[in-house]
Amino acid sequence: MTQIHPVILCGGSGTRLWPLSRKAVPKPFLPLVSTETLFEQAVRRVAGDDRFAAPMVVAGAAHRDLIMAQLGDTPGARLVVEPAARNTAPAIALAAALLPDNAVMLVCPSDHHIADADAFRAAALAAAALAREDYLVSFGIAAVRPETGYGYLERGEPLAGGYAIRRFVEKPDLATAQVYLDSGNFSWNGGIFAFRAGHLLDELAAHRPEMAALVRHAVPEGHSEGACFHPASAPFEAIAGESIDYAVMENTSAAAMVPADMGWSDIGTWAALAEALEDQADPHGNVTRGAADLAGCSGVLAITDGPRISAVGLADVCIIVAGGEVLVTTREGAQAVGKLPGAVNQ
Amino acid sequence: MTQIHPVILCGGSGTRLWPLSRKAVPKPFLPLVSTETLFEQAVRRVAGDDRFAAPMVVAGAAHRDLIMAQLGDTPGARLVVEPAARNTAPAIALAAALLPDNAVMLVCPSDHHIADADAFRAAALAAAALAREDYLVSFGIAAVRPETGYGYLERGEPLAGGYAIRRFVEKPDLATAQVYLDSGNFSWNGGIFAFRAGHLLDELAAHRPEMAALVRHAVPEGHSEGACFHPASAPFEAIAGESIDYAVMENTSAAAMVPADMGWSDIGTWAALAEALEDQADPHGNVTRGAADLAGCSGVLAITDGPRISAVGLADVCIIVAGGEVLVTTREGAQAVGKLPGAVNQ
Repeated sequence: MTQIHPVILCGGSGTRLWPLSRKAVPKPFLPLVSTETLFEQAVRRVAGDDRFAAPMVVAGAAHRDLIMAQLGDTPGARLVVEPAARNTAPAIALAAALLPDNAVMLVCPSDHHIADADAFRAAALAAAALAREDYLVSFGIAAVRPETGYGYLERGEPLAGGYAIRRFVEKPDLATAQVYLDSGNFSWNGGIFAFRAGHLLDELAAHRPEMAALVRHAVPEGHSEGACFHPASAPFEAIAGESIDYAVMENTSAAAMVPADMGWSDIGTWAALAEALEDQADPHGNVTRGAADLAGCSGVLAITDGPRISAVGLADVCIIVAGGEVLVTTREGAQAVGKLPGAVNQ
Repeated sequence: MTQIHPVILCGGSGTRLWPLSRKAVPKPFLPLVSTETLFEQAVRRVAGDDRFAAPMVVAGAAHRDLIMAQLGDTPGARLVVEPAARNTAPAIALAAALLPDNAVMLVCPSDHHIADADAFRAAALAAAALAREDYLVSFGIAAVRPETGYGYLERGEPLAGGYAIRRFVEKPDLATAQVYLDSGNFSWNGGIFAFRAGHLLDELAAHRPEMAALVRHAVPEGHSEGACFHPASAPFEAIAGESIDYAVMENTSAAAMVPADMGWSDIGTWAALAEALEDQADPHGNVTRGAADLAGCSGVLAITDGPRISAVGLADVCIIVAGGEVLVTTREGAQAVGKLPGAVNQ
């Protein structure tokens, strides 16, 4: 059986997790849910299992040292250093162009949490089988609430181990999200994909010929340096950044999905982290990291990198003290953290 | 007309205003309501008005330097340095023993805020007139809510400029406090008093003869040092500490009160400070001191001595960052701040 090639994407600034997530050490490289970072968890999820090949990481130069340190001794790991941030489609295309045409690639963001790694691997195998039949496969994350912050996938006809995708839906309003949840036919689009590398490049050439041509230049004109590959800057920087959903998935006639119920969270906000940490909470639903004294609090997330946090009487509030900044937000307000002056002007 | 002698007491640790109020620099010496400290306000309230003599300050040795600095060039000011903290009765008795028998003393805590200094001085003059007739006079603070944290005074028969006190009531429960408020016959006991010095000492001798005897020893056996007077340690330390209310006011048959509606607050908690600062609030009721970015907040008090505070979506919460400590409390929870480990183990 041919191996699946994990491609781990390290984009995303995680500004809504400021002040812990910073430009220099953003969200993927922080130990948010466990003592491992989200990136380390993404690597370990596919490690030590010979159904998976060594991972290929795609990231910006700014995080190269962090990545090499957190990869540790992962055998055979490679790092593709993006000359510029151009969203997911060019990043995935770079990886595809570096793999054999018939390699099945499993594209994984590194800033998500997956509680059930077994369920993840089972979905990956199902997705890989469909990818070998030239489907472009998205993981359909089991929706568990009427979330308005994600895109949705609507299931079409059944396939072996999955479904065709009837349509992609942008972030819906709450009423629509509730209809989706009740129908049982919609899943969250979690940004995890399986493609045959050559097929992905063919589809990109069909739907985004200019991007495909620039990637085709950037790879042979690039150079390797140990475990790192540096694509040529000029053609890559000339690419108009676009997500893989917009560039390919919403245009192809070969889109499929595999259902994945695996305790997924994008840890998009402090509220999402608080939820992901619920199994670590005290009987009142509080979670603390570092010195924290809570009195009469419930549902409080208190994280500090040094100064003691003392809190009284709060419910469903997140208190984050990091790098000389103090953030206090309700769970409901957590979406707005990324727009605070402190997060914007890092 | 003989002058009124202000006696400014600097007891009270202000632990409920931790982490800004600390043992080394407690509540009276902090600029809580304005750019002046509460102590400076207490001094200035009776300064530049020749109806009032120079102030006599009674405080512990630990705060001597703070007091001398904050007194500045207040002409004629004296400091009585308590050898130990023994509550208000011994502190007041010390001051009385250092004043002429016929001097009228106006006892003022230094950790309260009074918005209307004219109303304060008017009440002081009325209280002094009654004190000259050998009443022991307490200010009856106009009750404006059914407060359960204060003692109450019930009015008896009218006197010139005031009332006899029918009874003293300890902190009531909420239902009782509401009855008091509705009746119009009850005032808060704010800890501001006027006495003729010799009369106060006579009453103390009648009701607490041992305390009176020890104070009588501590003064002649003490010594002066510039503007400071140091009572003898041994007799003063032998005193059993007690409040002036318990030691004298609740036992005398000469208790009187003058009504005082003067924008009084004991600034007892962060919630009380937030209320006292309402006229400095933005249209959403937020008050900030130092670097603070608030988004979607109302009724928030944010005070920092350095690190920026960022807050989202909070209502009626106090965030205090001081001396490397971070406190976040609801207004309702503010009473419990003094029992937090950080406040207790300073």
